[in-house]
Amino acid sequence: MHALFRASISTRRSATISYHFPVTIGKLLDGHSKYYSTSAISQDLSNSTQSNAHSAPFPSRTHTCGGLSALDAGSRVILTGWLLPERKGKLVSFFPLKDSFGTVQLVVNNSDLTREVLAPLSKLPVESSVLVEGQVLLRPPSARRPGPTGDIDVQVDKFILLNAAASDLPFTPSNVHNLPSEELRLRYRYLDLRRTVLADNLQKRSQVAHLVRNSLHDTGFVEIETPILLRSSPEGAREFLVPTRTKNTSDFPAFYALQQSPQQPKQLLIASGAVDKYFQIAKCFRDEDGRKDRQPEFTQIDMEMAYVSWGPMGPISTSPSSTSRCSGNWRIGGSDVRVVVETIIKKIWKKFENVDLPSCFPVMTYNEAMTRFGSDKPDDRFGLEITEITPFATPTQKAWLDEKDEVLEAIIIRQSQEPGFCYSARRCEIDPLVESISITEENAANWLQESKTIPAPVSTEVTGSERPDIDDLSLSPGDTVWLARRSRVPSGGSTILGRQRLRLLNVASAAGKVELSEAPHFLWITEFPLFTRSDDDKDFLAKGRYSSSHHPFTAPMWEDIKSLYAGKVESVRGQHYDLVLNGVEIGGGSVRVHDASLQEYIFTNVLQLSEQERAPFNQLLHALRCGAPPHGGIALGFDRLMSILCKTPSIRDVIAFPKTAGGTDLLFKSPAMVPADTLEPYGIQPRNPDEASSSS
Amino acid sequence: MHALFRASISTRRSATISYHFPVTIGKLLDGHSKYYSTSAISQDLSNSTQSNAHSAPFPSRTHTCGGLSALDAGSRVILTGWLLPERKGKLVSFFPLKDSFGTVQLVVNNSDLTREVLAPLSKLPVESSVLVEGQVLLRPPSARRPGPTGDIDVQVDKFILLNAAASDLPFTPSNVHNLPSEELRLRYRYLDLRRTVLADNLQKRSQVAHLVRNSLHDTGFVEIETPILLRSSPEGAREFLVPTRTKNTSDFPAFYALQQSPQQPKQLLIASGAVDKYFQIAKCFRDEDGRKDRQPEFTQIDMEMAYVSWGPMGPISTSPSSTSRCSGNWRIGGSDVRVVVETIIKKIWKKFENVDLPSCFPVMTYNEAMTRFGSDKPDDRFGLEITEITPFATPTQKAWLDEKDEVLEAIIIRQSQEPGFCYSARRCEIDPLVESISITEENAANWLQESKTIPAPVSTEVTGSERPDIDDLSLSPGDTVWLARRSRVPSGGSTILGRQRLRLLNVASAAGKVELSEAPHFLWITEFPLFTRSDDDKDFLAKGRYSSSHHPFTAPMWEDIKSLYAGKVESVRGQHYDLVLNGVEIGGGSVRVHDASLQEYIFTNVLQLSEQERAPFNQLLHALRCGAPPHGGIALGFDRLMSILCKTPSIRDVIAFPKTAGGTDLLFKSPAMVPADTLEPYGIQPRNPDEASSSS
Repeated sequence: MHALFRASISTRRSATISYHFPVTIGKLLDGHSKYYSTSAISQDLSNSTQSNAHSAPFPSRTHTCGGLSALDAGSRVILTGWLLPERKGKLVSFFPLKDSFGTVQLVVNNSDLTREVLAPLSKLPVESSVLVEGQVLLRPPSARRPGPTGDIDVQVDKFILLNAAASDLPFTPSNVHNLPSEELRLRYRYLDLRRTVLADNLQKRSQVAHLVRNSLHDTGFVEIETPILLRSSPEGAREFLVPTRTKNTSDFPAFYALQQSPQQPKQLLIASGAVDKYFQIAKCFRDEDGRKDRQPEFTQIDMEMAYVSWGPMGPISTSPSSTSRCSGNWRIGGSDVRVVVETIIKKIWKKFENVDLPSCFPVMTYNEAMTRFGSDKPDDRFGLEITEITPFATPTQKAWLDEKDEVLEAIIIRQSQEPGFCYSARRCEIDPLVESISITEENAANWLQESKTIPAPVSTEVTGSERPDIDDLSLSPGDTVWLARRSRVPSGGSTILGRQRLRLLNVASAAGKVELSEAPHFLWITEFPLFTRSDDDKDFLAKGRYSSSHHPFTAPMWEDIKSLYAGKVESVRGQHYDLVLNGVEIGGGSVRVHDASLQEYIFTNVLQLSEQERAPFNQLLHALRCGAPPHGGIALGFDRLMSILCKTPSIRDVIAFPKTAGGTDLLFKSPAMVPADTLEPYGIQPRNPDEASSSS
Repeated sequence: MHALFRASISTRRSATISYHFPVTIGKLLDGHSKYYSTSAISQDLSNSTQSNAHSAPFPSRTHTCGGLSALDAGSRVILTGWLLPERKGKLVSFFPLKDSFGTVQLVVNNSDLTREVLAPLSKLPVESSVLVEGQVLLRPPSARRPGPTGDIDVQVDKFILLNAAASDLPFTPSNVHNLPSEELRLRYRYLDLRRTVLADNLQKRSQVAHLVRNSLHDTGFVEIETPILLRSSPEGAREFLVPTRTKNTSDFPAFYALQQSPQQPKQLLIASGAVDKYFQIAKCFRDEDGRKDRQPEFTQIDMEMAYVSWGPMGPISTSPSSTSRCSGNWRIGGSDVRVVVETIIKKIWKKFENVDLPSCFPVMTYNEAMTRFGSDKPDDRFGLEITEITPFATPTQKAWLDEKDEVLEAIIIRQSQEPGFCYSARRCEIDPLVESISITEENAANWLQESKTIPAPVSTEVTGSERPDIDDLSLSPGDTVWLARRSRVPSGGSTILGRQRLRLLNVASAAGKVELSEAPHFLWITEFPLFTRSDDDKDFLAKGRYSSSHHPFTAPMWEDIKSLYAGKVESVRGQHYDLVLNGVEIGGGSVRVHDASLQEYIFTNVLQLSEQERAPFNQLLHALRCGAPPHGGIALGFDRLMSILCKTPSIRDVIAFPKTAGGTDLLFKSPAMVPADTLEPYGIQPRNPDEASSSS
């Protein structure tokens, strides 16, 4: 204490302008301090400019606004925070004072005594930053409000204006009922973040991340930072390139690529044995064309574990019983990963939602999900399951389907059981490939025969005994049948009827005819096809060849390895698992290939990668040859997870400084042009050199 | 349990090749399992290729190698790990088995019974990954070794080869006495990381990071992820650019820049009030020319706090007493930051070094550090302090110095007190600007008059009474004096004699003549000059103008604000603080400017930034106008901190996948060329289009 004031006072003496300031401090010490309102001081300090900020010393706050409660009644406090709009009364005025912890109500007597000192308070623009000193008063019972600070007021007798807000703010964050467009709020994000709801999201995000870290550290995981500046590699989506000033032998510019995910580094790490269980809350980057609610940089909870297995086998196992208890139809490896993830998710939902999740999450194969729900991330909170009705088709229809290697499936909406969906069925936009049939007395017997979905000649033959009677579907007039065909082997993320099913839900719930349970439905989807004919956004890489449904390091189910080597590529299932919550994929992972020769076979014979395409994988192949252990992992989408926990539809609401769907940062104004000469050291130039000059 | 095996067995039945495998599993259950060595199985699985990896199910390990101890004696265990070289005995063979937790010794009886099964073990290449089952045996007391696993062996009776290592590994990590060049080890980092020392570094890094997070969360800090894809801004070092496919109105390409530090985002965050205390363990990026031991991407512990103050003032303060107790000559704001940092550092050194650091770290002004030690990060573990000897100079010499606005200073090595340094003085390379004078009987009186360091005419006049007698320095023959001049106002990071002082230390300690204490010396350096004429590596930005010693957001000491507005730029001291450990800077920070008009004055009048140069700061200026609170923060270099804690000279030893000083990643082979057509969507091309074609 002493030292401080000897020190400070001595220096302050040396400063010309503020002789009386140390006196203020001195007075402060014996408690009769009278604060200077800043403008006075800073005018002393700067004749050259008009300042409304206080740059001189000020005392520490003694409490936070949100931290006060009835327990503090009577004590003198120093608070700092932002002034919210004043409510004027006859004898007293009220100013809510807000800081990051909450809001407390300041009371100012309009008595002669204090007016002189406090009059300036009323003149301050809202959102100005002030320091106030005063006494905590307990409110009369009638005036108490919910929340800890609702029981008290703070009677102010001194203040310092720490920093005045401009009187022409682009908007007033405290005025939540009159907010401007998201675009404008993104541009002034630092104002928008003053809204409690956004601040709460960020603080919750920090708490969830910390819970995850604690949970993983407690179970022996080691957090490792992997490089963000990596090498360009064809796997996955389009990546960002980073030009370097490196000079190659050839003078062609050299680039880093920003990591799309730490996939290779984490596998190399586990292969090395440096850690047995790796995790990282990792920034990842994808240069995807602005899909709705995507960000060019995003965060994932990334894990990898050595020696993942099928769970305990044999009498001497001491693995957590949950592994075995939960196995259900988890028929692949990586059960250790499953246990870790379910543990974390259960902890999060217990702490932040006070929900007890089932001790283990249900498991469904890709094939079941696609046939029952027409989706690889099914929302199983409602019915409308898809029924295959090929068996009811006529022989000619069947023959026609067989020839196309297709099946016929239907969503049946029974008026008696699904009045809500029946309502929406009549209003729902219909996919051109879906045939909607309203069952009537007339068509009850032959609606299928006459269906246009199978353009086979209407057969007149009597219903053969070899096929079940259509009446077995027990439809009644008023029911609706939605018909569609699909290839016998399901592929991709959803089917026609799967998408129609969700459209029906949206219409029904929009109209309030159907309400989904609030309870979170977690679900594992497993046994995905390992390879697919590439989907569009990867075709510029696959060029018509097979591509990996997820990535080329996913291990086939061991039962299918022989088929793989036998060239039956389409039939091979991968040891991949997706975690789905209420129809949203929140994570995915797999057991990896640890057998170098198998990995090489996949690169060369299945994916048919060229030497150049394989180059980025050479170190991984060699690492497998150095005795890499069996291993597997997963990545959870942290932004999506947080948006669900924060009950907001947009991940932008859980990111401090998000970019638009188009990848534009409206706050920092990026991406931006750079002077053309800035590019020279990197050995690159704008494609059309004429424009270079114009810009620099 | 049941479910698992019903499920698995049924599927396994369906697989052709492995009818007998489920039987193995079955047998496993009743404990008489006989494992198949992998090669057998995988040959079945793949006729097309020779595999030495086991892709079929295997039981979970029951223990880790490092986790075993005498307490497990007698129990049957399943272990996984890497085989180290065998030691053959008459009756038994020994194989160390290593995993991420430690190493245990396997014992194999050479009895007929087990040979058949275990013979293949001897044939396996070292570093192969195996699963073994056996019994833990207590060693005879004579054979016990230090460490938990030193009391036991594991007698093996079964094993599975999970993945064979190649027989031609580039090097054997377990053979620590015969390691290849660092270059080769970086290329095969996944092998090098199998060395215990590197693995320990990474695990320690994870533990330290977690301790830091826990400590900060406990004190109300919120961890926030800020954007890595930011806008290009002139502040600081050269940055990395990221081309985008964004199409501007003009067709000139648009770029993100990788963050050099979260400086602006964190200030905007605090300005917003979303959080009161921010932190992030943040990845930062600098495109610096490979200085020794620098990495293009590095990690810092980054913090920012609202309402930082000069510590408690006034009678009602309840701030942590340490703030005041410690103040010493901490005469600037940001005392809250100081307390937080000292708390974290003390926790780290207590936990990982078992050292109790002083309750608060000493504070020294930049000016004192430069005059006493000739460095702004002084190593105060040894003497050789610098003495100003201008007073002893002759009037003519003084006149000459005054004219140049310089002072004369010296390092004096007294044979009597500093024999070690005296030794090295004779062997130390001397800076051309330093004059070394050996004191003899002859020159004892007039060595200074005759010094060549001041090329003033040797004055013959009698020593004037106005100056102290040179004898007051009480030098004796055999002592050495190192003379040099420096400008009266110290500037930059070190002086000539400061560098000479370190050279003397290096020679002396290399020769073992001087030993520095092991104890960590932490030291705060404060009150740096706020502006400097730019140093070389920033001159391409400053173009001869003033530049900020640290960054343009650092607040001047409030006592100097008037001088700033008066244009006495060189005399203005900043509220900046560096944390120094044993002569190494491990962090730095400052109180920021929160007064918009002051910040604008600095941009415009002092730094004379052009409109274009100011553009990247516009959002910060506006945020200050929205009632930003006084705030300050700091960033600690995490890589450097870890290299000190891991007692390694190179930060590459504490980074999982480091790059060379030149920025090359020898493992991932980056940076790398990309096909020229890859650049098209970004609107850029190689500077010399001719070479584009050749590469694609």
